[in-house]
Amino acid sequence: MNLILLDDDDFFDDNRVRISGRRFDHITTLLGKGKGDGLRIGQVNGLMGQGVIDSVDSAALTLKVHLNESPPASLPVTLILALPRPKMLRRILRTISSIGVKSCYLINSYRVDKSYWGSPLLASPQLHEQLLLGLEQGCDTILPHIHLCPRFRPFVEDELPIFSSSTANLVAHPGGGTPFPPQPQVPVCLAIGPEGGFIPYEIDQLGAAGFAPVHLGRRILSVETAVSVLLSRYIG
Amino acid sequence: MNLILLDDDDFFDDNRVRISGRRFDHITTLLGKGKGDGLRIGQVNGLMGQGVIDSVDSAALTLKVHLNESPPASLPVTLILALPRPKMLRRILRTISSIGVKSCYLINSYRVDKSYWGSPLLASPQLHEQLLLGLEQGCDTILPHIHLCPRFRPFVEDELPIFSSSTANLVAHPGGGTPFPPQPQVPVCLAIGPEGGFIPYEIDQLGAAGFAPVHLGRRILSVETAVSVLLSRYIG
Repeated sequence: MNLILLDDDDFFDDNRVRISGRRFDHITTLLGKGKGDGLRIGQVNGLMGQGVIDSVDSAALTLKVHLNESPPASLPVTLILALPRPKMLRRILRTISSIGVKSCYLINSYRVDKSYWGSPLLASPQLHEQLLLGLEQGCDTILPHIHLCPRFRPFVEDELPIFSSSTANLVAHPGGGTPFPPQPQVPVCLAIGPEGGFIPYEIDQLGAAGFAPVHLGRRILSVETAVSVLLSRYIG
Repeated sequence: MNLILLDDDDFFDDNRVRISGRRFDHITTLLGKGKGDGLRIGQVNGLMGQGVIDSVDSAALTLKVHLNESPPASLPVTLILALPRPKMLRRILRTISSIGVKSCYLINSYRVDKSYWGSPLLASPQLHEQLLLGLEQGCDTILPHIHLCPRFRPFVEDELPIFSSSTANLVAHPGGGTPFPPQPQVPVCLAIGPEGGFIPYEIDQLGAAGFAPVHLGRRILSVETAVSVLLSRYIG
């Protein structure tokens, strides 16, 4: 937790908040902070700044907050990701949130196990929790939007053209296409397949939608590694 | 398993191997292969090529192998990593092995929990297993070398100068130094601290050893994400 994130509900007047639970434990036990100490804070979907601990009791503390700083720039990437298995998805959600992705479409693909779509992790509160953990890690306040697209063809034919008409469009495809450029064009819509990759039909459909296949050389990376490695080229 | 890796022990003559256990299950059950089918194979620390299934019984199969292809190029990176917690280390070992790192020093740091050095994962057979899984993922045959350095100062003063005298030397340090270059100099020794970062004393010691601090902007990434993101700049 590199940033203490505040909800609207935490505010009891314009510049004071009351915090309990996980954040309280982190601040008092892990960071060992007490009355008068400063903290780096941010308001969800708002500004960042400093908080000073005003009072501490056994289960909650109050902070006087001063919010005057913009969150870091977003990554100019819309991520399109074949739904990974839940355990990996949990980590990927935190990663993309920490790294600055603001829009991610989780889509179906031939090699996505149908059971993944029934995972409790896809419920809004669970997605929200992982994304918050990512923002706390990355020191950002702006929540990413996660879109669930459980049907491949309607997604590619109907939804994709709407948001990919004025972006560079790439699909990661080990063993096909051209090398992924070290300093690629932005903004980009970047599609990453499941373990085992998109099938040829899906690559063809994405190709028809303007997505050029790119690869990272002879190696095949796990989806989780590929996400970090590919997004990395869009940082800074 | 994108590549079936063969040990010297698997060979029963110059160009035939007998396989059982995990690899047998993968080939027969997951890939559904049988007599006459081809497979992508590699010999640990040797060449890659093709295998053709010669015979299958209930618990083992034999392959006729033809090894004639070099493994992919290594990443020109010596990784120096503050020992992460075991669960994360397991994934990081697989990642760096799949991505082509061939030398990694796991070092101590003020913020490394002492208990991590007692993890069973640091025993040779366990390290070996994770590295093999990484090679199977990344389609490579050359095992990385993992060096355990449980004392920070002797490592930086005595060991580090030996292998970092003719490389570019960088230490990832959120909030300090200069931006990490998109196309950095190679070969490189790249140091990555623990969660929470190296302490100032450690950054000073690494600085005295010629390591320049670099950052990736305002965001703070988890060690696991930072490893993939930083290594990514050295691919291709």
